[in-house]
Amino acid sequence: MISQWQQQYGERIDAALQQALARLAPLSPGLRDAMEYGLTQGGKRVRPMLVYVTAGLTGNADSAATDAAAAAIECIHAYSLIHDDLPAMDDDDLRRGRPTVHKAFDEATAILAGDALQTLAFELLSDAAGSLPAERKLQLVRELAFASGYGGMCGGQALDIYHEGRQVEAATLETIHRHKTGALIRAAVRMGALCSPTIQTTELAALSRYAEAIGLAFQVQDDILDITASTETLGKTQGKDLEQQKSTYPALLGLHGARELADRLHQDALAALSGLSYNTDTLEAFAHYIVQREY
Amino acid sequence: MISQWQQQYGERIDAALQQALARLAPLSPGLRDAMEYGLTQGGKRVRPMLVYVTAGLTGNADSAATDAAAAAIECIHAYSLIHDDLPAMDDDDLRRGRPTVHKAFDEATAILAGDALQTLAFELLSDAAGSLPAERKLQLVRELAFASGYGGMCGGQALDIYHEGRQVEAATLETIHRHKTGALIRAAVRMGALCSPTIQTTELAALSRYAEAIGLAFQVQDDILDITASTETLGKTQGKDLEQQKSTYPALLGLHGARELADRLHQDALAALSGLSYNTDTLEAFAHYIVQREY
Repeated sequence: MISQWQQQYGERIDAALQQALARLAPLSPGLRDAMEYGLTQGGKRVRPMLVYVTAGLTGNADSAATDAAAAAIECIHAYSLIHDDLPAMDDDDLRRGRPTVHKAFDEATAILAGDALQTLAFELLSDAAGSLPAERKLQLVRELAFASGYGGMCGGQALDIYHEGRQVEAATLETIHRHKTGALIRAAVRMGALCSPTIQTTELAALSRYAEAIGLAFQVQDDILDITASTETLGKTQGKDLEQQKSTYPALLGLHGARELADRLHQDALAALSGLSYNTDTLEAFAHYIVQREY
Repeated sequence: MISQWQQQYGERIDAALQQALARLAPLSPGLRDAMEYGLTQGGKRVRPMLVYVTAGLTGNADSAATDAAAAAIECIHAYSLIHDDLPAMDDDDLRRGRPTVHKAFDEATAILAGDALQTLAFELLSDAAGSLPAERKLQLVRELAFASGYGGMCGGQALDIYHEGRQVEAATLETIHRHKTGALIRAAVRMGALCSPTIQTTELAALSRYAEAIGLAFQVQDDILDITASTETLGKTQGKDLEQQKSTYPALLGLHGARELADRLHQDALAALSGLSYNTDTLEAFAHYIVQREY
């Protein structure tokens, strides 16, 4: 399933990322290498794929803006992984079976590579060619900034760290995930849609509901996989959440309860799409994939 | 001299920063506190002051955009200091006599506070109210992104780290500083000017030359002060550059040569202003201050 999309969008995503890296002058080769290495560790490219899928709904999305949005959101995702892996954060030596950035390079380079990847995201969005009006490009910057900063990903990460080793309620866990991972998935869907000049406010709202549901489902499934999948399949240390005393849905709701929640969110996602007049097959299949995936 | 500007712009800068922080919902109080703490450590507010001074040249700058630009550039400056102070980077426990963010909080919080302050900068610029056309707001985002990422501040910082303990030539040292500190000072001057809808390309070019000269002069003077001023006056450990085997202008050119360079850059800055039809008294005085300051 995912491999089908990887086939469909993989080359375009790689090209967009290479185009982004090609902007970087030969000023500081070590830093550039670390940024590129970090960008290759993102894995499944879920976020840029969502950008392309939702941009494809109307058939009139601006191509340059879509590439910029896809690359920008992957830059943000990559920077967050680089910083999350640092010794002062999750202290991970491996990601998808390869040394993390601070292991392959060093900690200072990893901090700077993360910083510069974040900046690159906003550079890409503000500098994108294409026919989208400036007001819309500015909205793309705003969407990404809101989703990735204090009110989104960073804030969720801080909340997550704050609650490590503490008993949390389901509502708190949801708040953490809606910010830590959900906000960026929501931004991917919205930014893709915003690359179409004709997208309507009500359509954007429906897509946002879809994204919020799959974003949370993605995390619930992540928690489930952390205890059910093998280390080899995951490409990271299995049981790491338990070891780090992180609250998870299986811990809170039981494995069965967590699976029920994932299914409910799956249904919510499909319901959100039902009112749209576009062909949403791919988005539906994506929702299905989220709760069915095994790694 | 600087205290006069601090009087003139200090309240407005503080208000703009408080307004920026007020955007942050009570999601993660610890992270918000660290961001605010980091923002208060910026010190002399040179960059936002430059924004206000150059925005003031034409008399028709958009007030909301100017506040956003001033706050945004100070957020970037603050984030860079927080990350620079980390153990894996400069490993500083004190900044201006107060514990650095990772000492007052912890390393993970410091990394995230820096990350979120960078994002906040782009959020502020993309969300600024006021009458400036979207195209111009987008240009402000672009200016800040170019100046602070790989091709600017981050790249310069990486270059600086790369050359630690190595013998460098004057040209390399200039490249480091033009990126590490110069790019953001240049952005401050240009962004302030860009808040005026009537600013002309030639005027922007002259202001950029001015900014490049004072940006480098600022760093030369910093190097001079590192060996001539006392730890108490500096608010940081005197002689730290020497200890860390950083290349400096006094080491490369001698103290006398470094002072001559600062004077020449001072003259370059004044020459750049000479063709402008605005009252540039404050910018001239600022250039004077840069090379005369004792802390």
